[in-house]
Amino acid sequence: MSGAARRGSAGRLDGRVLDLNADLGESFGVYRYGADEALMPLLTSANVACGAHAGDPRTMRESVALAQQHGVAVGAHVGLADRAGFGRRMIPVTPVEVRDLCLAQMGALSGFLRAAGLPLAHLKLHGALYMMANADPGLAEATTAAVTAFDPDLAVFALPGSALGAAAAAAGLRVVEEYFADRPYRGAEVRMFGWTTADVGSPDDAAGRAVELLSDPVFGTVGTVCVHSDTPGAPAVLAAVRDRLLAAGCGLAAPHATAPLPRPAPAHRP
Amino acid sequence: MSGAARRGSAGRLDGRVLDLNADLGESFGVYRYGADEALMPLLTSANVACGAHAGDPRTMRESVALAQQHGVAVGAHVGLADRAGFGRRMIPVTPVEVRDLCLAQMGALSGFLRAAGLPLAHLKLHGALYMMANADPGLAEATTAAVTAFDPDLAVFALPGSALGAAAAAAGLRVVEEYFADRPYRGAEVRMFGWTTADVGSPDDAAGRAVELLSDPVFGTVGTVCVHSDTPGAPAVLAAVRDRLLAAGCGLAAPHATAPLPRPAPAHRP
Amino acid sequence: MSGAARRGSAGRLDGRVLDLNADLGESFGVYRYGADEALMPLLTSANVACGAHAGDPRTMRESVALAQQHGVAVGAHVGLADRAGFGRRMIPVTPVEVRDLCLAQMGALSGFLRAAGLPLAHLKLHGALYMMANADPGLAEATTAAVTAFDPDLAVFALPGSALGAAAAAAGLRVVEEYFADRPYRGAEVRMFGWTTADVGSPDDAAGRAVELLSDPVFGTVGTVCVHSDTPGAPAVLAAVRDRLLAAGCGLAAPHATAPLPRPAPAHRP
Amino acid sequence: MSGAARRGSAGRLDGRVLDLNADLGESFGVYRYGADEALMPLLTSANVACGAHAGDPRTMRESVALAQQHGVAVGAHVGLADRAGFGRRMIPVTPVEVRDLCLAQMGALSGFLRAAGLPLAHLKLHGALYMMANADPGLAEATTAAVTAFDPDLAVFALPGSALGAAAAAAGLRVVEEYFADRPYRGAEVRMFGWTTADVGSPDDAAGRAVELLSDPVFGTVGTVCVHSDTPGAPAVLAAVRDRLLAAGCGLAAPHATAPLPRPAPAHRP
Repeated sequence: MSGAARRGSAGRLDGRVLDLNADLGESFGVYRYGADEALMPLLTSANVACGAHAGDPRTMRESVALAQQHGVAVGAHVGLADRAGFGRRMIPVTPVEVRDLCLAQMGALSGFLRAAGLPLAHLKLHGALYMMANADPGLAEATTAAVTAFDPDLAVFALPGSALGAAAAAAGLRVVEEYFADRPYRGAEVRMFGWTTADVGSPDDAAGRAVELLSDPVFGTVGTVCVHSDTPGAPAVLAAVRDRLLAAGCGLAAPHATAPLPRPAPAHRP
Repeated sequence: MSGAARRGSAGRLDGRVLDLNADLGESFGVYRYGADEALMPLLTSANVACGAHAGDPRTMRESVALAQQHGVAVGAHVGLADRAGFGRRMIPVTPVEVRDLCLAQMGALSGFLRAAGLPLAHLKLHGALYMMANADPGLAEATTAAVTAFDPDLAVFALPGSALGAAAAAAGLRVVEEYFADRPYRGAEVRMFGWTTADVGSPDDAAGRAVELLSDPVFGTVGTVCVHSDTPGAPAVLAAVRDRLLAAGCGLAAPHATAPLPRPAPAHRP
Repeated sequence: MSGAARRGSAGRLDGRVLDLNADLGESFGVYRYGADEALMPLLTSANVACGAHAGDPRTMRESVALAQQHGVAVGAHVGLADRAGFGRRMIPVTPVEVRDLCLAQMGALSGFLRAAGLPLAHLKLHGALYMMANADPGLAEATTAAVTAFDPDLAVFALPGSALGAAAAAAGLRVVEEYFADRPYRGAEVRMFGWTTADVGSPDDAAGRAVELLSDPVFGTVGTVCVHSDTPGAPAVLAAVRDRLLAAGCGLAAPHATAPLPRPAPAHRP
Repeated sequence: MSGAARRGSAGRLDGRVLDLNADLGESFGVYRYGADEALMPLLTSANVACGAHAGDPRTMRESVALAQQHGVAVGAHVGLADRAGFGRRMIPVTPVEVRDLCLAQMGALSGFLRAAGLPLAHLKLHGALYMMANADPGLAEATTAAVTAFDPDLAVFALPGSALGAAAAAAGLRVVEEYFADRPYRGAEVRMFGWTTADVGSPDDAAGRAVELLSDPVFGTVGTVCVHSDTPGAPAVLAAVRDRLLAAGCGLAAPHATAPLPRPAPAHRP
């Protein structure tokens, strides 16, 4: 589909409802990390670190309280147990290990959610684990198995067209496909690595790109829009994205328990 | 009460039902610890480490599976986040920190229990945290608050006459008072530290002492009998205690949801 | 000694040479901590965390390079292996454990110093370990034994009148007594805990107090002045202290290999 | 070279001097690991874990003391900072990170060696880091750079024909090539993974294979023979290897400061 064709339909998201998510709760001990207080009021979903790659019990409690205060849905941001590498290093893990990581971390965060009277809403994998499980069917199935065993009502955040999304859908779980507002795209494919700030542009650029791409049928199955909390200027990016989505007629809400939309045929993908 | 009087009533525990517990699941990575396979078939309750002072996700999963195989109730063995010190060092903690430790660790273990279709049955604190929360009313209340928030049906293991037992009872929780079969006693008071193996004696000595003391009214409120998994010869001690309890007419079962027995007046305590 | 008498001699430190130190290198992984770049140019000694309570190999390397660039002497800031508590929790440790902590951490930092062609200049204990070893003769002797075994030319930073200073002096080590510019004093005794920012005052207040107290004979044995890197506004405090010391005629240099000055009699101490 | 030809020259190692090494000091906290007490008297070199993948300050101290008691040379067994994975997971690391790991860990162990009056004798990488740096020239050079900066008199243990051996030799360091007595070989190439105990055989099998292969010119540059401390029956394997080497006329000693032998031409390698 040409850029002109995209622009022809661009700018309107009337009737669409999207989730806005960010990764929060990544502080540890005396170390503060991320603009949680600034981001939380703008979100509909928060992915809270569970003490493995980041976070700790105090931070989990405080993050849940902050989310509760702003009416934001809380998901478990499950990562590799690699605090020194912040969960970003591709440490080889087996499917059984991934299932164990998911169960232990969803469980730990749920302790604080139960105490707050809130449900766990979704699972989002973090960093290297996100990339590995989106690409590897065995790790994708292990993630799905953990969610099914823990709570089959949880939504699973996944890349469009990913092994993780396929495994979760096959298991009857709710899949919420993710768009990254603070990353450049090459066609329908996000560039998670090897990009520059010039590729991403200003908050307005990011927000304009989000509306343009999300109004393209190729992104019609996307259910949630992410801004990373440690992107420089993350609150400004998130605010701009939020404003432009609302201006384009989009509703904002945490994912509902609805089946994923049918996907466009793979041929539409570049 | 004199030793003669005790011996007069000793040896019979007809109609009494006691729980037999041990601390398990304390391995970590390549490191194996404790005679879990030998102990589990003899227990009615297992206190499983939750990855803070000991244990890790794999060990939690394997411990839950082993308990399930033998029909043993599983409790969270919550400890200080002090792997280097195995949770035995008296690290100062605030009530809020204790509540956070309890919620995160009960939650993490519950992830594996949910996946196995088992309930979390009880909370037992570990090591230094056990000693501190049994003695300090603020930490006792924090522990109780965590249990109440997480699941008020959980039993709380506590020392007889402890601040922890009092706080849990005041909150309407089930308190299960604990007798330590592999520790010497001075009257009704366990000597957790500063004892020698001669003070404890052989497995038969430990088993005989257990039956004698538990048939004493001073110990009439005790609901569970502990053998530490890292006591030298723990399986033999546990087997001897189990045999003698059964021979004395005692039933063995994990704690039921019944109110604690009325306690003897404090004047009876040495 | 009255305030009037102190003020009579105050304001001049001609002929005195003092060291200016701060705790640096406390970052960890993605977590940044402390105003290292702003503080380093103003210091004569840097206490670099060694990867136990804070810091990691990369941070040690970067801290050594930054110190080298500014001609600042580097000491090992040895703390409890308590990253979650930043080394501030009073974890019980034995003398043998303290000796082990000192040897491992002085050694680790020395790896980077050797690669940079720099000597290790001093040992300063951190946080809870500093407080415990300054007060407890057994821990003080263990610290001293580690320094003697590792390198008897190292200086040992200690509180005036402390068990640590006494043990190090008895072992023939160089003791450098420490004054804390960002803490209030009650007579000759620093108040490490339980103070307010009002007690400390502005950077100018802190600098004025430093000159006034250090020109008092009671503080005549002090050899180094500390500003904590995580004190709010630490660079401004350090700059003010440095300016006022220089204006008062004081020289600034890392500790030299000279014997400690004779101490005033204990009766002078409040 | 045929097996017959090898057997023709087999059985005699007169005039050869080899080092016998094992990985020790891998305990952590309450967790014991490896048959250190049984192995140490049979070794000429011990590779002591430095607290990253295994070991801790107490274990380093005890390992150094045990080596000193038996006159065994001590090297730093440097691994990835991956205690949960025991340094066996292939975590991606950059050359700068490898240099940092080496400096911090050689330094930490050296703290205990200095206190014992012993020199650090060699560097041996552990587990995944050993495999990566033997294969990757960038990581090999980083390792070499760390040794050169720390102490250019250290020997570097490396696989024959490896990138690590080449980098160390190019830097003028002593390279000590390693033969693994408890692993099967395919020609001159060790099979570190995917072998069975049947491939390794009994202690006598392992000892016979060691003498046969080491008397082959292809292995003429080998300087040290390793038995892993966690191989089942490691002490029996090590004892058998040691006995057979001595019976074949081989001398046993830690590596001396001599240049590596010239290597056979690559064409000799299968």
